[in-house]
Amino acid sequence: MQASSHALVLLSGGVDSTTCLAVALDRGYGCYALSFRYGQRHEVELQAAARIAKRFGVLRHLITDIDLRPIGGSALTDEIIVPKARSLTVIGSGIPATYVPARNTIFLSIALAWGEVLNVFEIFIGVNCTDYSGYPDCRPEYIAAFETMANLSTKASVEGRGKFKIHTPLIALSKVEIIRLGTALGVDYTLTHSCYDPNPEGQPCGRCDSCQLRDKGFAEAFPR
Amino acid sequence: MQASSHALVLLSGGVDSTTCLAVALDRGYGCYALSFRYGQRHEVELQAAARIAKRFGVLRHLITDIDLRPIGGSALTDEIIVPKARSLTVIGSGIPATYVPARNTIFLSIALAWGEVLNVFEIFIGVNCTDYSGYPDCRPEYIAAFETMANLSTKASVEGRGKFKIHTPLIALSKVEIIRLGTALGVDYTLTHSCYDPNPEGQPCGRCDSCQLRDKGFAEAFPR
Repeated sequence: MQASSHALVLLSGGVDSTTCLAVALDRGYGCYALSFRYGQRHEVELQAAARIAKRFGVLRHLITDIDLRPIGGSALTDEIIVPKARSLTVIGSGIPATYVPARNTIFLSIALAWGEVLNVFEIFIGVNCTDYSGYPDCRPEYIAAFETMANLSTKASVEGRGKFKIHTPLIALSKVEIIRLGTALGVDYTLTHSCYDPNPEGQPCGRCDSCQLRDKGFAEAFPR
Repeated sequence: MQASSHALVLLSGGVDSTTCLAVALDRGYGCYALSFRYGQRHEVELQAAARIAKRFGVLRHLITDIDLRPIGGSALTDEIIVPKARSLTVIGSGIPATYVPARNTIFLSIALAWGEVLNVFEIFIGVNCTDYSGYPDCRPEYIAAFETMANLSTKASVEGRGKFKIHTPLIALSKVEIIRLGTALGVDYTLTHSCYDPNPEGQPCGRCDSCQLRDKGFAEAFPR
């Protein structure tokens, strides 16, 4: 596909955002990558994000500091225990303790700011609402409402310099479909990090929801 | 008025947000105040915010750190000269260099996060779209779109625990009307800070747009 423009991709360093970056590149966009140091207990994911940004040759990788720990309310930023060894049925049954209040809204808002400065209006985010995510800010109706708001909020859109489009190429895919897509696009998933609660050396716990869903996805994508 | 509930008020330490806090208290809300250390050159405003929060006896005053300097694009966070001594006609003629990309969207998003954790769904912001502001994220249509998005984005709203309402009691008021309203509510404006470009001792420059609009507002509110 022909390069048409530039895109800004939210990159956490996990399977989904890495695949999302691969999709944006495959669609011909020159890509900027944006990550967040928000007080997450799995800050090691930022090392993965940096490796991936480098491997993919993004135009620039920006890590923004925003300390969400004083706000709390999540097992990822607060002294709340990360759920472990939950059955897949339980994982799929509600909004988990690892939900971070308004996280995608905060991250997408900062993407708007950087996009406006860069003059880049194509924003990619690797949300998906199938399988077990349970996060309200991963649903299509939320993304549509954010996009409407975005185009009323910025100097660029008000002055007609650009119109924001929030791309969610993974929104209807399951984890195994995401892995198959990324594999077809040449993604090296050994670069990625998924665990919510790694040990001090950065090794995954193997038992949190994110580890379990990752393992299940790869097992299905690469059956025996 | 009877205390009906709690509210979360965005408090910069300026005239508008201080008046907005006074309005929320007057409406009977127990108030939480939220400020941001975002790399603004007038960080001295946070001292004003702390003084005001203390004087008003808010339930808690949280200052969130979010470094917007690497994103840039504004005279408030970047090495861009703050416009000085512009005529009021020029000030009113477009979006100024002190516009910070997506700032209200970022601030309101963090307010959603804290509100969700506190179980507080009444958010007050002191935006106004009259006079000379020129900021796109101060208009009623933007606020309405943000509110719609907010109620699709959070666990609290999805689970029916609460519905966010973005209150903008100053949106249709001029600076002089804001000052008259706050004065009637007993606001001590000597506590507030407005200047975009104070000297290292925190003294206002007297020549930036914000200083000029403040001076004009007080001159009109307290005529000779």
